[in-house]
Amino acid sequence: MVVGEEQGEMVSDVIGIGLVGQAFMGRAHANAYRQARAFFGGEYRPSLRIACGRDAAALGEFARRFGWEETTTDWRVLVEHPAVDVVDIAASNDLHAPVAIAAAQAGKAVFCEKPLARTIAEAREMLQAVESAGVPHMVCFNYRFFPAVRLARELVEDGVVGRIRQFRAIYLQDWLRDPTTPASWRTNAELAGMGALGDTSVHIVDMARYLVGEFEQVTGMLSTFVPERPLSNQSGRQQVAVDDAAAFLARLAGGVSGVFESTRMATGRKNFMHVELNGERGSLYWNAEDLNSLWVYTDDDPVRTRGFRRIVVTEAEHPWVAHWWPPGHILGYEHSFVHAVVELMEAIGEGRTPRPSFRDGLQAQVVLDAVQRAAQSASWVAVPPVA
Amino acid sequence: MVVGEEQGEMVSDVIGIGLVGQAFMGRAHANAYRQARAFFGGEYRPSLRIACGRDAAALGEFARRFGWEETTTDWRVLVEHPAVDVVDIAASNDLHAPVAIAAAQAGKAVFCEKPLARTIAEAREMLQAVESAGVPHMVCFNYRFFPAVRLARELVEDGVVGRIRQFRAIYLQDWLRDPTTPASWRTNAELAGMGALGDTSVHIVDMARYLVGEFEQVTGMLSTFVPERPLSNQSGRQQVAVDDAAAFLARLAGGVSGVFESTRMATGRKNFMHVELNGERGSLYWNAEDLNSLWVYTDDDPVRTRGFRRIVVTEAEHPWVAHWWPPGHILGYEHSFVHAVVELMEAIGEGRTPRPSFRDGLQAQVVLDAVQRAAQSASWVAVPPVA
Amino acid sequence: MVVGEEQGEMVSDVIGIGLVGQAFMGRAHANAYRQARAFFGGEYRPSLRIACGRDAAALGEFARRFGWEETTTDWRVLVEHPAVDVVDIAASNDLHAPVAIAAAQAGKAVFCEKPLARTIAEAREMLQAVESAGVPHMVCFNYRFFPAVRLARELVEDGVVGRIRQFRAIYLQDWLRDPTTPASWRTNAELAGMGALGDTSVHIVDMARYLVGEFEQVTGMLSTFVPERPLSNQSGRQQVAVDDAAAFLARLAGGVSGVFESTRMATGRKNFMHVELNGERGSLYWNAEDLNSLWVYTDDDPVRTRGFRRIVVTEAEHPWVAHWWPPGHILGYEHSFVHAVVELMEAIGEGRTPRPSFRDGLQAQVVLDAVQRAAQSASWVAVPPVA
Amino acid sequence: MVVGEEQGEMVSDVIGIGLVGQAFMGRAHANAYRQARAFFGGEYRPSLRIACGRDAAALGEFARRFGWEETTTDWRVLVEHPAVDVVDIAASNDLHAPVAIAAAQAGKAVFCEKPLARTIAEAREMLQAVESAGVPHMVCFNYRFFPAVRLARELVEDGVVGRIRQFRAIYLQDWLRDPTTPASWRTNAELAGMGALGDTSVHIVDMARYLVGEFEQVTGMLSTFVPERPLSNQSGRQQVAVDDAAAFLARLAGGVSGVFESTRMATGRKNFMHVELNGERGSLYWNAEDLNSLWVYTDDDPVRTRGFRRIVVTEAEHPWVAHWWPPGHILGYEHSFVHAVVELMEAIGEGRTPRPSFRDGLQAQVVLDAVQRAAQSASWVAVPPVA
Repeated sequence: MVVGEEQGEMVSDVIGIGLVGQAFMGRAHANAYRQARAFFGGEYRPSLRIACGRDAAALGEFARRFGWEETTTDWRVLVEHPAVDVVDIAASNDLHAPVAIAAAQAGKAVFCEKPLARTIAEAREMLQAVESAGVPHMVCFNYRFFPAVRLARELVEDGVVGRIRQFRAIYLQDWLRDPTTPASWRTNAELAGMGALGDTSVHIVDMARYLVGEFEQVTGMLSTFVPERPLSNQSGRQQVAVDDAAAFLARLAGGVSGVFESTRMATGRKNFMHVELNGERGSLYWNAEDLNSLWVYTDDDPVRTRGFRRIVVTEAEHPWVAHWWPPGHILGYEHSFVHAVVELMEAIGEGRTPRPSFRDGLQAQVVLDAVQRAAQSASWVAVPPVA
Repeated sequence: MVVGEEQGEMVSDVIGIGLVGQAFMGRAHANAYRQARAFFGGEYRPSLRIACGRDAAALGEFARRFGWEETTTDWRVLVEHPAVDVVDIAASNDLHAPVAIAAAQAGKAVFCEKPLARTIAEAREMLQAVESAGVPHMVCFNYRFFPAVRLARELVEDGVVGRIRQFRAIYLQDWLRDPTTPASWRTNAELAGMGALGDTSVHIVDMARYLVGEFEQVTGMLSTFVPERPLSNQSGRQQVAVDDAAAFLARLAGGVSGVFESTRMATGRKNFMHVELNGERGSLYWNAEDLNSLWVYTDDDPVRTRGFRRIVVTEAEHPWVAHWWPPGHILGYEHSFVHAVVELMEAIGEGRTPRPSFRDGLQAQVVLDAVQRAAQSASWVAVPPVA
Repeated sequence: MVVGEEQGEMVSDVIGIGLVGQAFMGRAHANAYRQARAFFGGEYRPSLRIACGRDAAALGEFARRFGWEETTTDWRVLVEHPAVDVVDIAASNDLHAPVAIAAAQAGKAVFCEKPLARTIAEAREMLQAVESAGVPHMVCFNYRFFPAVRLARELVEDGVVGRIRQFRAIYLQDWLRDPTTPASWRTNAELAGMGALGDTSVHIVDMARYLVGEFEQVTGMLSTFVPERPLSNQSGRQQVAVDDAAAFLARLAGGVSGVFESTRMATGRKNFMHVELNGERGSLYWNAEDLNSLWVYTDDDPVRTRGFRRIVVTEAEHPWVAHWWPPGHILGYEHSFVHAVVELMEAIGEGRTPRPSFRDGLQAQVVLDAVQRAAQSASWVAVPPVA
Repeated sequence: MVVGEEQGEMVSDVIGIGLVGQAFMGRAHANAYRQARAFFGGEYRPSLRIACGRDAAALGEFARRFGWEETTTDWRVLVEHPAVDVVDIAASNDLHAPVAIAAAQAGKAVFCEKPLARTIAEAREMLQAVESAGVPHMVCFNYRFFPAVRLARELVEDGVVGRIRQFRAIYLQDWLRDPTTPASWRTNAELAGMGALGDTSVHIVDMARYLVGEFEQVTGMLSTFVPERPLSNQSGRQQVAVDDAAAFLARLAGGVSGVFESTRMATGRKNFMHVELNGERGSLYWNAEDLNSLWVYTDDDPVRTRGFRRIVVTEAEHPWVAHWWPPGHILGYEHSFVHAVVELMEAIGEGRTPRPSFRDGLQAQVVLDAVQRAAQSASWVAVPPVA
């Protein structure tokens, strides 16, 4: 972290970013740093030092568009780069552990996409690495950073719904519904670890932990509807050893029951994530397809006017919104990453661990692992707490 | 009205019904009496004495199905029938005035479908007839009788939205969008008087009067998109001299502004009626396609949790609902007629004028007439109060 | 069944109804017969012969309102009554088996509310009784009889969604959320057999069977959040030995995965039943809070205009709708019972078994039983086919 | 326009931007250039040369956050700046004409916020200035640049809805509902020219012109519900001489009827813009609160499955979307400005006039002017075409 001049002006602390990945998530992260700087200002400001990707030509264009100072096709160069304060891992899941561990050993803060790792063992190793090195660490559960979700958390904390009894969350996509859609790293067990379970169930597991509490036990069912797919280079076919869909039941702390489902085969559902919790005195729900709205019901309202109210979470009083637009001017998907990066910058600046940390990433992984074992053993499996 | 035995038991006052009309509205009214009796009980109970229609064969089946004791193809017979206490007019608009006036002169209560008449002159004559005769009279603005609409009225009266500033209502249908759809009495100026204006605008005019107050002045625009239609017997074509669509602006009492639109040409919109009012401290809206819900917003809610709440108006605490099903078991279109008939029966039993009365029917007609004149003269037209 | 005169006219076959139960379901059934007769006509027409209930005073009022010819507080009288052709059981679950079996032995057709019985053994005995006696039998899975649900079935049969892969259904209510709400027969294991599982899960189990196919295996979780409730007569408290909520996962025939949840504790959700299925080429969903709409997505639409379309299932071309109102004039909850009764009358008239039959009732019961055993044993349990 | 090196790499044409305004719209525009560059690349790339604002301190922070090379508090400096190719006017309405005219005279392209001017005379002068100077000119009707709106236009052009008969649009906000909200330039007739009419009606007027065609005549009603407001510096009160709400009826080319309403007083409605058009064979509607969706109905669908389909306009096949995120990952309000800037850059690069041009801005102004005159004269007023 360098305090000094930048672009001809005395500025606040500048935090150098090194980003591994330039595809969907790479762009989402690169954008987040730029937007955090433009819309949030703040004392600690990200600077786009170096980007790493496999495709050198695309990488040049990526750098030009987003303003990366340097590029590399070797993540080790990035990890060792002296101007890099934060190593941001937005690459395929198989790279999470090696890059994160090397970054921690090089003394860098680490910001890692979800799922934290392919396996619980990898995740545990990653947590140990960052804690041993004493570096800041954060996992990118970006759904925590929608204003409506943050408001949901605040309302739960304030007791608006009373003691929670039930939680349900579904996450429906359809991009693998067609058997002729080619295999990719996301359908490759070696590279991805898990299928829908690791990719999207992990988000709703984190939602449950964020809004309700810890998992105690689970049972579940994994499905692979298309067992084999063509390779993208048309050189043959590949077996699909990950799940296309995952469904599981859970007991959470405090006697809360939970129902969870994720799929990549729900024809017509594009990014449909619905989260709902029911408490003794109220309920709330949120859907990613209408992500600026939070729906809240409370028995505190008079009987004749009780109803779920749709809060359009775009008021200056709502989390993060004052930095954006006037009421009713809606935010999109990418804003969640901006807010996540704001948390990352602030935590680093303040010398504290950002939230959610690798510990949260590991705990989510432990839940997914339990679901996998439960599905394999056709039984309920206990979810141990992270030590 | 006979107090006596019926079906072997001592019963409360029985009110004899004579119904003119056996089509859409005839069935809606016949059903309403039966259901009012079954679900509301009450001291004053309708009895289906005689039904009148033009098609004798269909009339026999209508009587058999709904349990009419007698039938006739001559409405004069019905009007004079000694067992008839209420003459219910659910026939084409041209019959409203002659039947109502004859009924009043025969000392019968009169219940008449909307619009009250084809013209303001007819409507005025009808009001004079019932008032001279001193008989109960009611116009069937059935939309007042949805629980959600009644709740809206109560909330307005209780000041939940504060002083009202704006009102808007649209009523969209599409059953005349196809130029090959044949002419009917509803497209015939002689029989219907008006088109969408008299058929559906009249409902939203009544909503404005029910929820807000009286009209002061209007300007408007009438459109006939299909100027000529085939006759249903394929014997030729008929000019359409009524409006397919009506739109108008209004000033209402207390400085309220209003925007109104009705059409039979909104392809895809089947019976889409949306009513909304905005007050200084709150707003509410209601839509006939989701007729069990009322949406309410109030600035009394804390800033961060303000939002339109969707009240599912199916609680026992809501108007009329205790007579039907448990919460969330939704009511349909026809229930509004049942509740209207309950008001009719109760008012007759209590010796008072039901609401809405012919006076309301006439006042709505005065508004429609002003809209017609405004459209013809391309100017604003004052809406006089009914004397 | 008597062919003869009724109300002074030669009529078609009249089918005499004896109804056991006068509460929520009793009223829904009584209404259904009357409305079937009024709106559907038909060759075979129900006649309200005798109603049975425990509360004699209420029973008199019930008879007067709905037009029952006779009443009794002894269901045996009803079962033996010579004018009764159909015994309709809309009483608490403990009465289903004894009344149905006696009715079958008396040679009557039997129409029974869901769940068919408290236990699989009772249900099996009931099926044997009606089959031995050779009488018509039908279980009242009324949700099959919403026009939108019937349309869903037709679209599935026509291959609109392709081969089905996934099914999900939730049924959320909240009427037991308050621990001070008294115990009733519905919370009593002896009288009800099951809680939410038997009361509402049974509906979504039937939806799965109706729209997709048979269950093969299940695992599940039952929750009782309020273990003890006050007695309604305030004489003490009663343990709640039934579930407040049930969630389960399933494998259905053809490799379909299913996720199911029912609860009486989802604060703010009144009668929220959502059913969705995803096929290889399309999807559809339906929600009981907007029960006139069916949402359908198909990959047959051009890419740029693909989307879930909301079909307002109120056209004359849609199942049963031609008997009711014009397009967009919505139907309510109770209409499903009317359509169920139309099926019952037609099947009896045609001398065939109505659908769904006791066999469907038993098969649903077998699924619920498997869920109970799975929950108790914390394992997956196979669902055997009914012999 | 300079072709050359930037940040150490050979780049395509760079287009220098000078921006007047740093508040809500200033930030929206500054963001748009950056995001256009990052997400769209393209041959012609904006470069943030100089920003102009009144508050020098805020301006420094604005420049630092968004990366403006220079700042000035004198817009004349900006207009004359040699590195500026485009003068972007995102300041209060009174500055539109002087800045635009000076910019045109200096040979700069001009990009101007809506409404183009305070009066029709100003707007006409602006158009003459840019046309005389032969410089590119564009008005920022950003709503044209939502993917769903662009898709709507394409579907209309492709004849999906057939010949259009009716158009309706409402734009509801509530930020002035409270009489204690202070006056601002937006409530000042001298600075703003018009109230809701110029601020939000102008958007729906443009929508009508974009999707349907030209206005022929209008009649309307303007309302000022709060005639006087406190000054923001608490030094007294100011009369409000602009409208709080505007409603008008229109005849458009081809016999299309239109209904329009805008307001700043619709309590609870934050940025609720609903646009709908009905054609002979189909309809479509769009709402800014769910701006990623377009709803389309067509009679080409089979009768039993006709319905409004909700197209989630986030597929790679949809306008602009391939540059953003995967399907279902929704875009927000600000993205419309990014797409507008892409059009601006491309048009400048290709040497053509961008769309919408000042001609569109003027034509919209002519409509607003006609509405004002119609409201004043209580009559219908013809809308002349721009010469």
